This record gives sequence, structure tokens and C-alpha cells, in this order.
Amino acid sequence: MDGTPPPKPEAKLAAGEAGYVLEDVPHVSDYLPDLPTYPNPLQDNTAYSVVKQYFVDPDDTVCQKIVVHKDGPRGNHFRRAGPRQRVYFEPDEVHACIVTCGGLCPGLNTVIREIVCGLSDMYGVTKILGIQGGYRGFYARNTIDLTPKSVNDIHKRGGTILGSSRGGHDTMKIVDSIQYRGINQVYVIGGDGSQRGAGVIFEEVRKRGLKVAVAGIPKTIDNDIPVIDKSFGFDSAVEEAQRAINAAHVEAGSADNGIGLVKLMGRYSGFIAHYATLASRDVDCCLIPESPFYLEGEGGLFKYIEKRLKENGHMVIVVAEGAGQKLIAENMKEMGQDASGNALLLDVGLWLSQKINEHFKKNKTTINLKYIDPTYMIRAIPSNASDNVYCTLLAHSVVHGAMAGYTGFTVGQVNGRHCYIPFYRITEKQNKVSITDRMWARLLSSTNQPSFLSKQDVDDAKVEDERTAKLLDGSPSNPKVEDKVASSNSNGVK
Amino acid sequence: MDGTPPPKPEAKLAAGEAGYVLEDVPHVSDYLPDLPTYPNPLQDNTAYSVVKQYFVDPDDTVCQKIVVHKDGPRGNHFRRAGPRQRVYFEPDEVHACIVTCGGLCPGLNTVIREIVCGLSDMYGVTKILGIQGGYRGFYARNTIDLTPKSVNDIHKRGGTILGSSRGGHDTMKIVDSIQYRGINQVYVIGGDGSQRGAGVIFEEVRKRGLKVAVAGIPKTIDNDIPVIDKSFGFDSAVEEAQRAINAAHVEAGSADNGIGLVKLMGRYSGFIAHYATLASRDVDCCLIPESPFYLEGEGGLFKYIEKRLKENGHMVIVVAEGAGQKLIAENMKEMGQDASGNALLLDVGLWLSQKINEHFKKNKTTINLKYIDPTYMIRAIPSNASDNVYCTLLAHSVVHGAMAGYTGFTVGQVNGRHCYIPFYRITEKQNKVSITDRMWARLLSSTNQPSFLSKQDVDDAKVEDERTAKLLDGSPSNPKVEDKVASSNSNGVK
Amino acid sequence: MDGTPPPKPEAKLAAGEAGYVLEDVPHVSDYLPDLPTYPNPLQDNTAYSVVKQYFVDPDDTVCQKIVVHKDGPRGNHFRRAGPRQRVYFEPDEVHACIVTCGGLCPGLNTVIREIVCGLSDMYGVTKILGIQGGYRGFYARNTIDLTPKSVNDIHKRGGTILGSSRGGHDTMKIVDSIQYRGINQVYVIGGDGSQRGAGVIFEEVRKRGLKVAVAGIPKTIDNDIPVIDKSFGFDSAVEEAQRAINAAHVEAGSADNGIGLVKLMGRYSGFIAHYATLASRDVDCCLIPESPFYLEGEGGLFKYIEKRLKENGHMVIVVAEGAGQKLIAENMKEMGQDASGNALLLDVGLWLSQKINEHFKKNKTTINLKYIDPTYMIRAIPSNASDNVYCTLLAHSVVHGAMAGYTGFTVGQVNGRHCYIPFYRITEKQNKVSITDRMWARLLSSTNQPSFLSKQDVDDAKVEDERTAKLLDGSPSNPKVEDKVASSNSNGVK
Amino acid sequence: MDGTPPPKPEAKLAAGEAGYVLEDVPHVSDYLPDLPTYPNPLQDNTAYSVVKQYFVDPDDTVCQKIVVHKDGPRGNHFRRAGPRQRVYFEPDEVHACIVTCGGLCPGLNTVIREIVCGLSDMYGVTKILGIQGGYRGFYARNTIDLTPKSVNDIHKRGGTILGSSRGGHDTMKIVDSIQYRGINQVYVIGGDGSQRGAGVIFEEVRKRGLKVAVAGIPKTIDNDIPVIDKSFGFDSAVEEAQRAINAAHVEAGSADNGIGLVKLMGRYSGFIAHYATLASRDVDCCLIPESPFYLEGEGGLFKYIEKRLKENGHMVIVVAEGAGQKLIAENMKEMGQDASGNALLLDVGLWLSQKINEHFKKNKTTINLKYIDPTYMIRAIPSNASDNVYCTLLAHSVVHGAMAGYTGFTVGQVNGRHCYIPFYRITEKQNKVSITDRMWARLLSSTNQPSFLSKQDVDDAKVEDERTAKLLDGSPSNPKVEDKVASSNSNGVK
Repeated sequence: MDGTPPPKPEAKLAAGEAGYVLEDVPHVSDYLPDLPTYPNPLQDNTAYSVVKQYFVDPDDTVCQKIVVHKDGPRGNHFRRAGPRQRVYFEPDEVHACIVTCGGLCPGLNTVIREIVCGLSDMYGVTKILGIQGGYRGFYARNTIDLTPKSVNDIHKRGGTILGSSRGGHDTMKIVDSIQYRGINQVYVIGGDGSQRGAGVIFEEVRKRGLKVAVAGIPKTIDNDIPVIDKSFGFDSAVEEAQRAINAAHVEAGSADNGIGLVKLMGRYSGFIAHYATLASRDVDCCLIPESPFYLEGEGGLFKYIEKRLKENGHMVIVVAEGAGQKLIAENMKEMGQDASGNALLLDVGLWLSQKINEHFKKNKTTINLKYIDPTYMIRAIPSNASDNVYCTLLAHSVVHGAMAGYTGFTVGQVNGRHCYIPFYRITEKQNKVSITDRMWARLLSSTNQPSFLSKQDVDDAKVEDERTAKLLDGSPSNPKVEDKVASSNSNGVK
Repeated sequence: MDGTPPPKPEAKLAAGEAGYVLEDVPHVSDYLPDLPTYPNPLQDNTAYSVVKQYFVDPDDTVCQKIVVHKDGPRGNHFRRAGPRQRVYFEPDEVHACIVTCGGLCPGLNTVIREIVCGLSDMYGVTKILGIQGGYRGFYARNTIDLTPKSVNDIHKRGGTILGSSRGGHDTMKIVDSIQYRGINQVYVIGGDGSQRGAGVIFEEVRKRGLKVAVAGIPKTIDNDIPVIDKSFGFDSAVEEAQRAINAAHVEAGSADNGIGLVKLMGRYSGFIAHYATLASRDVDCCLIPESPFYLEGEGGLFKYIEKRLKENGHMVIVVAEGAGQKLIAENMKEMGQDASGNALLLDVGLWLSQKINEHFKKNKTTINLKYIDPTYMIRAIPSNASDNVYCTLLAHSVVHGAMAGYTGFTVGQVNGRHCYIPFYRITEKQNKVSITDRMWARLLSSTNQPSFLSKQDVDDAKVEDERTAKLLDGSPSNPKVEDKVASSNSNGVK
Repeated sequence: MDGTPPPKPEAKLAAGEAGYVLEDVPHVSDYLPDLPTYPNPLQDNTAYSVVKQYFVDPDDTVCQKIVVHKDGPRGNHFRRAGPRQRVYFEPDEVHACIVTCGGLCPGLNTVIREIVCGLSDMYGVTKILGIQGGYRGFYARNTIDLTPKSVNDIHKRGGTILGSSRGGHDTMKIVDSIQYRGINQVYVIGGDGSQRGAGVIFEEVRKRGLKVAVAGIPKTIDNDIPVIDKSFGFDSAVEEAQRAINAAHVEAGSADNGIGLVKLMGRYSGFIAHYATLASRDVDCCLIPESPFYLEGEGGLFKYIEKRLKENGHMVIVVAEGAGQKLIAENMKEMGQDASGNALLLDVGLWLSQKINEHFKKNKTTINLKYIDPTYMIRAIPSNASDNVYCTLLAHSVVHGAMAGYTGFTVGQVNGRHCYIPFYRITEKQNKVSITDRMWARLLSSTNQPSFLSKQDVDDAKVEDERTAKLLDGSPSNPKVEDKVASSNSNGVK
Repeated sequence: MDGTPPPKPEAKLAAGEAGYVLEDVPHVSDYLPDLPTYPNPLQDNTAYSVVKQYFVDPDDTVCQKIVVHKDGPRGNHFRRAGPRQRVYFEPDEVHACIVTCGGLCPGLNTVIREIVCGLSDMYGVTKILGIQGGYRGFYARNTIDLTPKSVNDIHKRGGTILGSSRGGHDTMKIVDSIQYRGINQVYVIGGDGSQRGAGVIFEEVRKRGLKVAVAGIPKTIDNDIPVIDKSFGFDSAVEEAQRAINAAHVEAGSADNGIGLVKLMGRYSGFIAHYATLASRDVDCCLIPESPFYLEGEGGLFKYIEKRLKENGHMVIVVAEGAGQKLIAENMKEMGQDASGNALLLDVGLWLSQKINEHFKKNKTTINLKYIDPTYMIRAIPSNASDNVYCTLLAHSVVHGAMAGYTGFTVGQVNGRHCYIPFYRITEKQNKVSITDRMWARLLSSTNQPSFLSKQDVDDAKVEDERTAKLLDGSPSNPKVEDKVASSNSNGVK
């Protein structure tokens, strides 16, 4: 799986009035045309008996492009999530499985709980398997039975009761296992790599002509998945990060020339660092992967640290784990060190601590640097109330989708509404902090840190942003309809 | 102010292609046509120097109706928030004031902080007054000067540093004070009553021909303000409510026939009770103002309590403060009691406790009811990280709007984007939990509580919902353009 | 059980050099003289293999009187807790039971857990019953088996997994049940009433000549049990009370003439209110049962409130639930109200709220009083780390005592060391805040509140304190040795 | 200062009946015999007007040895803390200063606050200086004035408002500064090194014949100060450490062969690791400096990890920062590495992570080790309620002592009572976890970890314990009276 992108599947697109485009998701009936359908059991559910409209109107779509001009084109839309009038699986027939892949993220257990309770309470499904330890659990581990009772309290605990791991994606073995066990609904909770893996499983399932719905719930604590509003667990993570920043602030403020340095998650996207900085207001400098920085010379980090220490006596720096990777690599090379031989120093937090200490030692200035890495303490917390509700909605939406026969899709909230999104749309590109956006400018303005950018950097970033905006924010990626679709603005104030 | 609705102002509407309607907000130039404009100082701000597009495109609008059909009408739109190329106030000229009205809500201090820092850091404004103790502070109290330094740490504290109060809205005295003090930007942070008050101030200001921008930031811990996605502080409140529910769960579970009863905020709208129940999963029954309930007989609360105690030995009930008001009033009357003479019993929590205790005493069943009212402990917390960021964006958006000369507007997030919304749109109707929506059905399904609804109730609720949907979800209220605008669906899965 | 004090058992006293007195606890061999003994299995426990001295020296005693004069008498001592070289029960023979009585208190589950794990891990005991729902569970409910596995995670939850109740003490039925089930170790976790009950069970067991060890672990969130340093859960409760005081402070500070009123636990003893006030420093007035107060006139509460509001604009009052009971009763009588008919008003918090509101209404001063009752939110929390360790030591100590054949005792920490204390010593008197002690003076000094005391009150309190000091702080209650024992000082600075 | 122990001052000892010994503290009148005294202003303090006995009886002493035998010797005693009838300073005359030294610890700000408020409220002192940045602040920094108002809210914040640093102790410069500024009360809040420093300052002050009281409040988050019951901030630290252990538990439990490794504070004493492990119950292995351990072979750490992973699939290890230092040094030497050249690896947590990873890599077993270092997040929290009260009492006790003319002393709680202790008694030895005590056995029993001890280790530890017990637990260090004093047992069950 790892590395090689799967062949991009054909997009299902439909055009409408005034530049309207629907980017639809696959359906089992696309390749198994004569499947029977059944009335949705929800209509007999007493809890739903008062609902005005049990089912989502089959024509409902959610528009991705929300900032529009009076006579501009309407742009891209996704299929709205929710229960359908007729379903493609009888409750007795369903044999679902759930797998969690990749690193921990607050809310994993809530999603598991709510897929189980959703399938059970809403659709009367009884056969739900937990795959243990990530993708390899399909072929290398025992499964566990999941019931509403067994998952009843798990949303109050961090981590995942199923266990997780990276890698282990062996498409053939996995689909063999699915086929062998008679599984017909596969729920994959995982990051972009795992969603890409789910896409490959879907392709293989389709090739084999199996009536199996493959559905994803995107999971990334870094919020680096595009198209969707935000990933579950992100709010909880930003909240918990405040503790580390507060501690850094106290430590820095209690020492002469105190520097509190906090490393936060974010290998490729600095959202946690960005939002934690904005929420805290105690941070003097926030370094993220999207915005290159340098240490020496005018406009460099060292000069800025010197300035803040002189002005204020202490300072707090937040650094995302993926920040400055290029700088570290160059620096290692200069030093004649082989980075791979000294993995510890590849930790940007430890590396930066060392560099700052060396710099001030050279300058004969005594500083007190305290380095805090709260990563695992953040990842392992249970989700907060807001994420709990969000996870519940995601889980129910994905269950409705699979029951209705949709497959090869991931569920996500787009502009506040839950949608079904083709796998390729959330894996073709990572969501990144746009450093040419007003949101990042707002951070710069609140920290007063230098932008570390040359004119060239700014121009590059703008070009990159244009390209990304096209991909992410409302333009279908299929050239055949592109001319119908206007280029969209990036988020602006949001 | 109180009670009598102000005459509804003329809506500013503009129509576009495919059923597009823009519901615009007033502007000082509407009645002061020859005002000079100035370049926006943001363009010289180093933090913003890397921003691709400093300013919001003047044609940007945000669509309210987001679930659409292929060829359906586009519906209502609002003006997008954000900085404008030219502003109507010179920094030196601005004399802003901030007032907080009504009950406490997490985030008040963050909004105050960020209006002050936004005006100061982004626009170089130096004269910002804090009006103390709510509306009456305009004429009955001293003001305090607000500076970035004086508000630096206030976002970490609950409450409002300005103090607050209900009522005290004397339009003439307030506008006299505004005029007398030379104030030209008025920021009102308050609930629907206070926003209505701000609307009246705006009308009076316009009548007097003053160059004063009157802007609102809607504040309601109950989330009962329509049109906007959610009100600030709501997430923090739902989070904090979990503590009370947990305690009720522990108390109930440690006693024979234990009943934990938690009263949560929500005079007219049960959103906090609703979301706190969904997030917790430990609640067996959630009672909200929108859904009438009854005590005796089949399908009544007592029967349900008996059932749960029999099945499970204990139960947790969450009741919103405004639930069952009609029932209480009737009950008082029956008992020959004058409700006004026994205000304590009008507290639904105390009343319900008494009723449940009486019922089981009569039935000779020993129960252990523990009543928890965490209201003030919830209201008084500082906002969490997510609300801190949200408050920041609201504050900056409102500042951009006022600087750009917009007035008579409130700022709000609609489908994830910040907009300027005419006052009357957020005060003409309260946002309520729709009990015919799938979101409420989801709660019923998770608690297994009875719906307490007769067929008639359901039909009434559906009619009411239709009416509300028209008002709230994308239909302009001005009949002149109504024929251009389709009736919209309510939220669905969201 | 309730009300009538049991006949006071004969004290086991022994005198030594320099005024030394040992107040010993009963032992099963006192009335069953020829019991066999067994080597303590701990000596084969690998964890204990490195311990210098496996067993407590049988002569070890803990002195109660710790502030002494050079040549003053040594005073009272208790038997030191800990494992003994020889035990009176073989592991296979032990059939233990645990019961929790009375209101919730943080740490109950930890004590349960550690009695189970202590018996199991240290002594190899396998038969441990949980009695459900308090004393009446002995004869009216099923029991549950307790194993290290079944109690493994319970210390992280509030409440008690066994359930609890007040009353239900029917001595004959309980001892019948003990005899019938073959139980030979009874662990009673409960307050002074329950400990008194345990004393009566012990007397009956002795009368019947049963080889049954009856042992108590004193539980009272109010810290109202004498002799011992503090009761488990007290620290956790004081910690959690800070939330309510903080909220009251925020609410009061955000309103004109804001008054935050917090009711805390403490029916007869105001320790929680006292310590929560000292820890917080945001409280302007603390009212406890031990210190009478009055409302009207010079030196009264109303005058003090007026003064604080004038000086500071707002104030916080903490009131223990048992404060002012006499005042309320008198007041009700004056009003011609029958207190019993209006139980709500017997809640001192609601009563005081009403009185304060009435007073200021009469004086035409607008105040904003916010009343917070966090009682159940405090009781239901899990114990904090410090209480967890404390509960562990108490549980292990009580297990060592019962295994060694001691009975009719309660376990407690005295001057930092764990001891075995005869039941009557902890039930003959309640621990109370001494209002003539420097600790209370320290509170008065930090709040600046009036003392509410007349000269007569002070004199009465001093006499009462003398009397109590004799009972509690080092004087044996048996007159036969009293002449050997000097009167002791009360705690002083402690 | 650093390193060289000051000459041990002459102890002030007094003997009494039955082996009673008082180990007294110096007094300014020892070397300035004709100083005038003044009535204690407390007697006119209204808050204290109801106190039965304003002042501590001058003969009150607190016994250190509390576990005694009937006719055994009484052992060592300390002077009881508290206000004295006559004081040696007039309020107007007092010029106090406060300095904080060494690492952060929860409660520092509370101690500062309460020294200021104690001096001011109880004694009417107005001149109180804050020395900034530790000892060197006496001669290298400006001072700040401290008033009750300026310290009012500081107890809610972590860290120290005075700043702190290590070292910087230049006795002559410091005493010059004291003399030059006219300071006559010096309060030193710091660890054993700083207390030793305070002892040297006291000696110099005495040599110069200055009327200056030098008093210490021992501060050590590690609880490594002997004689006293526990150091302030310790409870808060153990509480906060639970978060890290919980996170490690979640991370470990969510991965195949997951190992959560948490490093806690404790350079020479493992109390935090010990108590945090006992409080949590989720820890499988706790490594502390007092108990050597080894990696390879039977009974080694690797075998134990393999066993736990096999049994349970995951495990949690807590390691104190000072654990295994000898092992690391040896290991470095073997590897031909110079430890000083790779300071990162001297971090036992990083070192142990690497060793464990290498071991399992060699064995071709995939493990998932997550390393958490919460040190700075723990140190920087504000103190909890229990520590707040404790800090208050310590601060008031030290103020009473200095006002009464005592000097060259530190304040501390001994067996629950506050005492004045000569500096040398708390600096001559560190408080350590006794691995031959039942408390440590209790931990071994709860974790089931190997003891890592050979027969020789155990014997050595027992000898060491005997030696320490003599020093710490009740034996005066002056040989002249030693024959009067029995050897005491170490703590036992406590």
C-alpha cells in the first residue's frame, strides 16, 4: 500500500443549472445492478416516529463553495448523508467490521461505539466484528464481537479498544479475509494513508464483484484531511495543548531569560500549533511545517528570541513536529552528521533546544530553556463533549451510507453538513495551514513573530495556494466538467 | 425597550441568478451619503504582508441554504465578513465602546479582549471605552478605558470584566450618552433582547443622522439565536455540564432506586440539555421546553421512571430550566397554589423533585432522588480553547464591519463562514430544538425515553417547523422577493 | 440502632512510665481464649522479602498527645496498626464481607478495592462478599463476590460499587446473617452512626461467642470523626469545592452588588467550609455550625454584607449546611411557619438567599444573589491521588488488624501513624471546628468577617473546648487512670 | 556555597524526664543578649479576640518519635511553632525580604502570599521586599515591593512571581546587601542546598552581630527533605503525575506490545514515582534511585517486560529521573561513549527507551514504546487546595518564629504539628524512600515487579536504613546526649 498511489478512480460527476456540479460516490448497484432493496427499518423506530421526514431527499446535495457572487457559478456539491428510504442490506444479512488504523486520536472509541450502537439501535444489526490492531488484524489476529453492551462506556476512555497500528495493508489478504468471513460492511477509521488503503480495498472488492460496502471515517489529530470542516478529536487536542503552553509560560516566567518550548503534533500541517497558539495568547512564536524559518541573521529566530527576552524577560515558543525539517537536514549535513544515525536530533524540539542553547552559550548569555513534549498526553485523552457529539454524527452518517449501498466513500462534514465524499478527494492532497490566508496573518499579528519569509517564499506560497484552492475548494478534479466550474476563493475570514 | 417589538426595518434585498437573494445590512452611507473613505491600515500591517488577498471581495456573499437540489433555487445569502479595502473611519477618529448585557456566558471576556486587540493591533485605534454593568452603564455608571494591556489576561477568566445586567435599556438616554461622549462605534455583546435593543439604538442613531456604527455580537449560552451556526460559549457549557451529569450518574448508581436529576440552562431552547445528553450517554431522559411532557398515566414520566428503576435500579434525568412550564402552571392552579407566591416551586428542578418524591411516596416505593443545579458553575467558567478561537474570529469580524461603515448588524457564523446579518433576522424568532428533526430522534433513540407526544403534538410541531424553516433557513422575510425563493428543508442530518 | 447510644464497653487500658497510658482494642482471644494461631503468610511474600522487619513490634504504640512539655505526662496511646507475626485466621478459613453505609464520599471504591486486594494479595484470601445497599443488605439483598479482578478499576470512579443507604441497622438480623453465611470478618465503611452500629454488632458477636472480627473504616466527608487526623475523601472534597467558590466569585464579580452564596457539606462540623475558604482566599464570609451568627443589627450578617458591597461591589459567602439551624427554627416560628411543612426552607442556602433578598428589597437596594449548591457534584467525584494512597493504607491496616484477631476497632491515622482505636472513642463525640482555636482565627483574619460572638458565646465555647480536649486529645475516658494523665492542650498552630 | 558543607553549628540541646530531649533553634538573643521585647500585636487583633490562648506556651515541644513502647525513652523533640507573647521586632521596625531558590514547585506563590499577608495582617508589617531571581537577586537585581494587594491572586498561578534560579550564593555579597538595605528578616524558600545557604547566611549574620532573623521554608517537589512529614507541593505533583500515567496506560493499551514509559521527578529520592504509582494502580514497574536495577538476565528488567507483554499485551513503566544513574554510566563506558558528550542519553527516560527498543529489535519482537516526560507540566501547576492550606500554615509559622526572634531555623510539619527545626537537621541527610520498609513492599506487591535486589543489596540497604533512622527519626546528632536517647524504629506502616 505504502507510497504508491492507487490508480485514480473515475469520478462520478453530474452537472446542473448555473455551474452546479455533483461529485458523487460509488454505489454497490454500480457493479451489481440487480440487487434487491428493502424498506428502511428506521421508519418503524419509535424514536423516529415524530420525525417530519424520516429520510433524506435523494436529490439533496451539499454545496462545497459557500462564498459566492451574485451571478457566479455554483460549483461543486457532495451527496448529503443520512438515512435513505430503501436500504440494500437486510439487518439479518449485515456482517459489519470496524478497524482503527494509525496513531491515537481523541474520539476513536466514540466512533466505534456509535457505529455499533447506530447499526444496532437504528437498523437492528447484530453481527459486528472488531478487527484488532489495525489493517493487519484482518489476517493476523483474532476478531472480537462488538455489542452495544460491550461498547457502552468506552467513549469515556482515550485510545481505541480495538488497538491500532500503522501499515500492515496487504490488499489481497484483507479482501480474502473479508470474503472468507462473509463480511459485507467494512468501516475504516484512519488517516489519509488508511483511507487510501480503504480505496484500494474498495477497488478490489468491486473487481471481485462482492456485495460489500467499504466506508471510511477520516481520522487525523493533525486536521490535515482536506475538504472536510475539521477532523474529530482536533478540538480536544487543541484544548489539551493549552496545559502544555500554560506550563511553558509559567516555567519561562519564573526564570531569568526563561524560554518555554512546546512541541505539538503536526507532521505536515501545523493546525494544532496554529489553533493552540491562537487560543492561548501566551505564545510569542509559532513554527509550523508550512512556514519555513531560519535561525541566524536578520529576521531569523535567534534575533527574535533576543528581542523578546530583552523586552519581556521570557518567551514561549510552540513548534509543530514537522516544522523546520529541511533546516534540520541541511544543518546535519553541515555538521557532517548523518541524521539517520541520530534519530533523537531529528526531533525538532530537541534539535531546536540544542541550537538555541548553543547560540546563547556562544553569546555568553545565560538562558533557561525548558522543553515540553506533551504529544502522548494529548493523543491519549478521551474526546471532549463537542467531539463526542461530532463523532456520533459521523458514525451515524457512515452507517446510513453503507446501509443505503454507498461504497468507496468517506463521511465528512462540509460547511456544517454531513456528506459522502469519494475517497480520492480526501487523499489526493493534504489540508495545510495557508500562510497566505488571513487566519495565519491573525496569528502573526497576535504573536508579533517575524514571518521568516522572503519575497520569493510569499510568491511561491501564493502559487501553491491557488493550486490547492482549485483542488480543495469546489473545483471537480475531472477536466471534463472543469470549464463549467469557476475557480473559487480560498476561505478568507473563516 | 422591553416587550414591545421595534418597528421592523426595511430589509435591504438584492436578487441574482437562479433564485439568488442577498439580504444585506445597513451602512452609514445609506443615510450619510457623502462620507469620506480611507485606505485600510491593514495593508501596511507586517503580519498581513504575506496575505494573498488582504481584503474581502466586495461581492462575496455567504449562502445560507446549503443543502440544495441540482436545479433548485439558490436562496438567501448574507454579506461576508472581513476587512474592506477602504474604511469609513480614520484610526484617530474612532471612539469605540463595548457593553455586555444579560447573563454570563463563557467567552465574554475573550470577545472583549479581541475587540480591543483587534481595533488596536489591526487598525491602530486607541480610544476604547468599557461601559460597565450593561445598558444602564451608558447613563448611570463610569466608564473604564480598555487597552490591549489591560485586557491581556482576561480571556482566562470567566464572567465579564465590564459587569453585566438585564434591562436598563433607555434608548434616548443611551443615544444621548453616545452623542455626548462622542462615541462612534458601539459594540453590544448580548442576547436577543439586547440585540433588539441594539437595533433600536441603531434606528435612533440613524434618525439623528450620527456617524455611529452600531454592531452586535450575539451572546446566548442557550444557543437560542437563529440563523447562526452556534453561539459562542455553547461548547464550553456543554462540556462543563458533563460534570453534573457524571455526578448524577454516580449518585444514582450508588443508591437503591437512585434518581439523579440535573437541571441545565435553557429557558426557551433545550440545546444545552440536548447536546449534553448526547455527549454523555449516561442520561435516561431529557426534558426540554420544545417537547411538552406529562407525569401521570401511560406514556407519562412516572411510568417511564418506574420502568427504568425496575430494569436498571437507577436513572438519570436532565431537565432544561424552561421545560414543563405549562405543566407546572396547570399543576399549581389545580393545587390552588399561586405560582407567583412560591417562586421556588417554579424552578422546574425543585418542582419535579417534589412531584417524583410525592408519586413514589404515594406508591410506597423508596427512592433516592438527588437534585443537581450546576447553572452558575457552568456559566462562570472561562471559555475552552475552541470557543476562544471562535470568539476571536467573531470579534475581529465585527471590528472589520464597523470600520467598513456597516451598521445595524450583528456578526455571526453561517455555515462556517462569518457574515454580517441584519439585527431583525436574529431577533424575530428564537432558535429552537426541532423535535421533528432527526437530531432529536437520535436523542430519543439513545435514551429510550418516551416521546410524550400525541398525534396532535406531532402535527403541530411539524406545522411550526415549516413556519420556522421559512423564516430561518434561507427565505428572506420580505414578501416582495419571496416568490423568487424556494422553501427550504430544515437541517436534516447535521 | 438509631438514637439510643449503646452501653459503653469497658475500656482496655494499660499504664506505663511517666504518665503513659495505652488505650487498647478488643481481641477475639479476649472471649475465645484458646484459638490457634498461624504464621503470617506475608513472610513468604516476595514483595516483602526485602523488608527489614516484616511485622510490627507487638509493643509499638502511637502517642496521641504530641505537643508535650519537658517533664509533662506522656498521655494516651493507641495500638499501632500493621501486620503481626502470627495471625488468627488461616487464609482458607477467612470469609470476609464489606459494607458501605451512609452518604457518598470520595474514596469509597478505593477502600473497597484495597480491602479486597489486601486480603487477596497479602493473605491469599479468596472469599470476599460485597453486601449491597448498606446495613439492610445483610438481610434484604443478594451479595456479590468481590475479586481483585472485579474491583480492578473501581478506584477511578466516584460513589460505591456496593451501593449505600442510611439506617437499616437491625442488629439481630445482621448477626444472624453473619452467622448463617459463615462470615468471620466484617468490614464496615461508614460514618459515626455506622461505626456505632459496628460496635453493637461486635457486642452481639461477642455475646454469641463467634470468632468474627468486626472492624470499621471511618467514613465522613465532613471530617467530623474525632481522634483521627482527617477522614479519607476530605482533601478531594475541599479541592472540588474550589470550583463552586470560583464560580460564585465570577458571578458575584460580574454583577452590580453581586453576591455569590455557596452551600457546602457539614451538618454538624464546618471543616469543609473552613478549609475550602482558607484554600480559596476569595471568600468574604464563612458560616459554620460551630459558630452561631445573626442577621440583623450591629455585628450582624446584613451589616457586614452592606459594608463589603460598599467597599468592593461584590462578595462571596460560604455556608455549611448545618450553619444557623437554630436561627432558622426561631425565624420560622416568628413567621408563624411550620418548618416541617416547608422543608425547602430548611435548606440554609435557600433560606439565607431568601432572607438576604428580602432585606435588600426592603432597603430598596438592588442586589444580584447567585446561590450554588455543589453538594452532590462534590460527593460523587473519584478520590484524588493523595486520598487514593491514604485509602490504600487504611484498607491494608484494617486487614492486618482483622487477620491478627483484633475486633471491635476502627482504623485511623493519628499524628501520621495508623492505629487501631476502640469504636467508642470515635463515636462518643464529634470532631468539630474549634472556634477558639488559632486555625479559625486565621480564617476570620483572612475573610475579615465579624466573629458574630458575644462575650458569653466566647466563654461558652472555651468551656466546651476544654471538655472536648479532655475527651479527644489524649485523656483516656476511664476515670481509673485519669489521675495519671495530664490535661492536654488543644492543637494550636497545627 | 556549592559543595563544601558549612561547619556544623553547635546544637542547642536540653534533656528531660524519661529520655526526653529538646533540639532547639538559635535565637537572636543568643548573641545579642539585651534586646528589648514588645507585646505581640496579635492580642489586639479582632480575629484573634476569641482565641482561648493567643500564644503558644513557651514550654510546648513536639515529639519526633511517635511510635513508642510503654517504658521506652521519649526521644527527640522540636520547639513548637506559633505566636509568642512577646516579640523581638516592632512592626514599624521590620524590614523583611523573601527569596525563592531552585526549581519550581507548586505552592511557591502561596507561601510568598502568606508570608506577606501574615506579616501584614497579623503583625502590621509594611516593608516587605521580594528578591528577584534567587540568591543572586540580593546583589545583582532590583527588588520589588510586596503588599497584600500585589500578591492577592498569585496563589492561583503556578511558578514564582519572584523568579528563581540555582546557585548564585555569594555569602558576603548577600549579607552585605542585607546589611546595606537594612533588612532584618530574611525568608528563604528553597531546597536543601538553599537551606544550607541560609544556614551560612545565618552564621555570617551572627558573626557580624546583626539583629536579623534568618528563616527557611523547605521547598522540594521531590519530598527529599528529612524530618518533616512532607514538603509542600508534593501532593499536587503526585496528582498531576496521574495524567501522564493515564496517558501512558492508554497509549500502551492501544498498541500491540505497547509500552508506556513515564519519567517523573526525583533525582535522589523516588517519592513522586512511588506515590504516583501507588495512587494510580496502572503501573507495572516503578524504578527509583534508591533501588538499583539491571536490564539483562534473570530477574532483570527485560525479562520482566517480556513476561508482562506476554501476559497482558502491554505495560506501563514509571522511572524517577535519578534512577539507574550508575547503570547508565557503566553502560556508556562499555559502549566507549563519553556520557558528558551526549547529555541527552543521560536522561534516564531517553536512555531506557533506547535500551528497550534495542533489546526487542535484537529479539525481533515489535514493540511500541511511547515515552512521556511530564516534568515541567507537573512543576508548573498551581498548588491544589490541600497544599494551599499547608503553605498557609507554613508561612504563618515561619512569620511567628521570626517575629519572636528565632533565627537559623527552618519551619516544618513534624507528625502533623508545625515546629522550628535547626537548619543542620534538614540538610545533613536527604529523605529517601526506604526500600526495606513496608511502604515500598506495598508498591512491589501492587506492581508485581521484581525487586532487582541481591542478598547483598538487601543487607546494605538495611544497614543504611539503620544509620538513617538514627539521624532522622528521633536521635539527636550530638553524641553528648545520645546515650539518653534510644534508637528508634523507622516509620513502619505509615
